[in-house]
Amino acid sequence: MSVGKSVWPSMYSIAGLTMSVSQAGVKYSDRDDLLVFSLCEGASVAGVFTKNAFAAAPVIVAKKYVLTHEIKALLINSGNANACTGEQGIIDAEQSCAALAALLGVGPHSVLPFSTGVIGERLNANKIIDVLPSAVNGLVNDIWLDAAKAIMTTDTRPKGASCRVKIGSEYVHITGICKGAGMIRPNMGTMLAYVATDACIDKKTLHKLTQVAADKSFNRITIDGDTSTNDACVVIATGQSNAAAIDTACEYYEPFLGALVDIFESLAKQIVCDGEGATKCVHVNVEGGKSHQECLDVAYAIAHSPLVKTAWFASDANWGRIVCAIGYADVKDLNPADVSVWLNDVQIVKSGERAPEYTDAAGQAVLSLEEFTVRVSLGRGEARESLWTSDLSHEYVRINAEYRS
Amino acid sequence: MSVGKSVWPSMYSIAGLTMSVSQAGVKYSDRDDLLVFSLCEGASVAGVFTKNAFAAAPVIVAKKYVLTHEIKALLINSGNANACTGEQGIIDAEQSCAALAALLGVGPHSVLPFSTGVIGERLNANKIIDVLPSAVNGLVNDIWLDAAKAIMTTDTRPKGASCRVKIGSEYVHITGICKGAGMIRPNMGTMLAYVATDACIDKKTLHKLTQVAADKSFNRITIDGDTSTNDACVVIATGQSNAAAIDTACEYYEPFLGALVDIFESLAKQIVCDGEGATKCVHVNVEGGKSHQECLDVAYAIAHSPLVKTAWFASDANWGRIVCAIGYADVKDLNPADVSVWLNDVQIVKSGERAPEYTDAAGQAVLSLEEFTVRVSLGRGEARESLWTSDLSHEYVRINAEYRS
Repeated sequence: MSVGKSVWPSMYSIAGLTMSVSQAGVKYSDRDDLLVFSLCEGASVAGVFTKNAFAAAPVIVAKKYVLTHEIKALLINSGNANACTGEQGIIDAEQSCAALAALLGVGPHSVLPFSTGVIGERLNANKIIDVLPSAVNGLVNDIWLDAAKAIMTTDTRPKGASCRVKIGSEYVHITGICKGAGMIRPNMGTMLAYVATDACIDKKTLHKLTQVAADKSFNRITIDGDTSTNDACVVIATGQSNAAAIDTACEYYEPFLGALVDIFESLAKQIVCDGEGATKCVHVNVEGGKSHQECLDVAYAIAHSPLVKTAWFASDANWGRIVCAIGYADVKDLNPADVSVWLNDVQIVKSGERAPEYTDAAGQAVLSLEEFTVRVSLGRGEARESLWTSDLSHEYVRINAEYRS
Repeated sequence: MSVGKSVWPSMYSIAGLTMSVSQAGVKYSDRDDLLVFSLCEGASVAGVFTKNAFAAAPVIVAKKYVLTHEIKALLINSGNANACTGEQGIIDAEQSCAALAALLGVGPHSVLPFSTGVIGERLNANKIIDVLPSAVNGLVNDIWLDAAKAIMTTDTRPKGASCRVKIGSEYVHITGICKGAGMIRPNMGTMLAYVATDACIDKKTLHKLTQVAADKSFNRITIDGDTSTNDACVVIATGQSNAAAIDTACEYYEPFLGALVDIFESLAKQIVCDGEGATKCVHVNVEGGKSHQECLDVAYAIAHSPLVKTAWFASDANWGRIVCAIGYADVKDLNPADVSVWLNDVQIVKSGERAPEYTDAAGQAVLSLEEFTVRVSLGRGEARESLWTSDLSHEYVRINAEYRS
C-alpha cells in the first residue's frame, strides 16, 4: 500500500557521475541489490548520518572518511544493514570498499560504504566483492531508475526527484534518489538518500547546504537521535557544469539551497507516501507556539499517536484524539482555551472545544482524501513548524510482523 | 484478544463502602454504564490524576474537591469521557454530582465525578440524573464484579484484585477494580482505578501511599504527562476495621504499602494483558544504568517501538530492532560494547553484538510464550527500572480504527 500514484520523473544526468547496479545476492535473489557510484576528479561529497548509538559499521566508516578523504566512489548494498556486527562489521565494510578502490585505482579510503536491510547479521562481503569487477565495467552515466530500485528494501516503489536551477547564464542540475519505507514512525528502518549535482561547490559549503536542506526535509519526517542505525543522506557535487562556483557568500547560494531543499522535500515526501502500509499522507502544521521546539513537540505528539494514526486510517476525524495528543505533548502552561485545530480548511477545534459549526461529514470529507493537512494553532506565540507523516494500517502490522520471517 | 485467562478473583468486602450499578444509556444500551460508590462517615479519599493539559471536566472537578472536601460518594460513567467539553462539561459533571449529593443528603462538593469513553462529545447529564434515585436505592456492599464491568469500554474483561494484610492482631482488607484496555502505548485511552480498604488512614498518609504505589505500578505502564485526558486512580480508606490507624511514622506503614503496591501492580498488569489487541505481555527490565531516568528512557524506547512490538506479535526475536531502540533512547555516551540483552534467560546480545551462543530457535521459544521478560544491561551503573507492555497486532489497528465508527 502507498499513497498516490508512482510516477517516475524525468531525471537529469549529472556530468561527472557514473553508476552501475548488480545482483550480488546479499539477501535477495533475482533483483539488483548493489549500487556503485563513481565520481570524477575534484567532486565534493557531504553527508548527514544517523545519531543512533548503535550506528552501523558502514555509517561509522563513511562518517569518518567523508571528512578526511577525497571521495571517489560510493558502494551501497540492500538486504543487509551490517549493523550491530561489531569489529567484524567494520572489517567487512572496509574490505568491500578496498576491493572497489583497487578496481578503480583509487585509495582504499576514497570509497564510502552504505548498507540497508536486516540488522545484526554478518554481511557477506565476498558476495559483494565477487560482482565488483563487472560492476566497474558497467559504469554508465544515467540509470537512475535502476539505481533507485537497487537500494529498495520494503519500499513498494523507486523514489527520485530532479530539477535544474540557473546560476548566472548557466543551468546546474540536481538529481537524487532515496529509499526508506519505514518512516511511518521515525524509528523505523533505514533511510538512504543520494543527491548529485553538477554544480561546483567546495566541501565546506556542500556540507552546510546538506545540513540545512536535511533539517528542512528529512529531519522533518524523522527526529534527530531517533533514527535507525543506518540512516544517511549524501550529496555529491561534481563541479562539471560551466556555472560559477557556489559558496556561502555568493548570490547563488540561496537559489541553489532553495532548489536543493525542493529536491530533498520531494524525496522525503515520497518516503512518507510509501510509508509501510500508508494509505494517507498527512502534513502536520503547528503554529502560534512560543518556540520551535514546542511546535515540534506538538507536531510529533500528533504524528506519533497510534490512536490518531489509526483514526486517520479509518477516515475518522476523531478530533478528540488529536487534542489528547496536543495535551500530553508537555507544553508548559498550555491553555486549552487558546488551541484551535483545522483539517485542511475545516475548523474542528475552537478555543479547546469542538468548533460549533463543525460537522462529522465535513471532517470525514477531508479525511477521505489521500493527502491532507492537520493545522494546529497554539495561540501563544509566533513560532511554527511542520512535518509529514502517514497513518497506521493493518498493512503496517503485516509488513513488520512478516519481515525477516 | 488478550493475554492469559480471565479469572475473577475472590474479592473481600470493604466495610463502610457500598456500591450500585445502573443502565443510564449514556452510549451503550443493554449494559451497565454507571457506577456509584457511597462512603461511610469518616472515610479518607486520595487520588492521582492525569497531567494532560486537556484534562477532562470530571478530572478538573474531582482533582479540586478531593483536596478540599470530605468525600462521600464517587459517580462514574462509561461511554463518554466528558473531555474537551469546556465550561459546559464542568456544568454537566457538577450537576450530576449535585443530583447524587442531594439524594444522599450530603454537600454538593462531596461527590467526585469520573468519566471514560469518547472524547469531545457532550455528556448527557440528564440520562445519568434520571437513574440516580434507583441507583441510590440499590446501594449494596459487595458487587465488585458488576462494578468492574460497568466501567469497561474497550476492555474485554473485568479487572479486580483483593488481599488482606495483618495490622497488629487484626486484618485489614484491600480490594480494587480498574479499567483500561488501551495501554499498549501510554497515550491510549483512559485508565480508571478504584481501590478501597477498611484500614484507618488519614488523608495525608493515604495520599502519600497512593502516590508511591502508583509510581511503582500504574506509572510503570504509562508515563506521567503522557496520559489520557481522563486517567485517575482513587484510593478510599473507610477506617471501619478494628486495626490501629496507619500513618507514615507507624510500623504498619511499610507492610500496608507493600500490600497496596501488590494490588496496584496486579491491576496494572491486568490492564497490559488486556491491552487492545494484545497477544503478549512483556516485562521490560533495564539495569546497569547511571540513573533511573536513563533506564526508563531505554525501557520506554523498547516498549514504544512499533517495530519491536510487531516483531513480538510475530514471535520473532529480531534483537536488531531491540538494540536499535536502545541506540536511539538518547543515553549520553552509551557504549554499545557494554550492552547485553536477554529474553528470559536466553542471552541474545553480548557486548553490543549478537551473542555467539544465541540461536533463533532459542529466541523464538521465549517469544512464543504469552509472557516473557526483555532484560537489558547497560553496563555503566547501578540503577534499574522496569515496566510492562504488550505487542502490536492486527487486532490493535482494527479496534482503534473501528471505535466510534
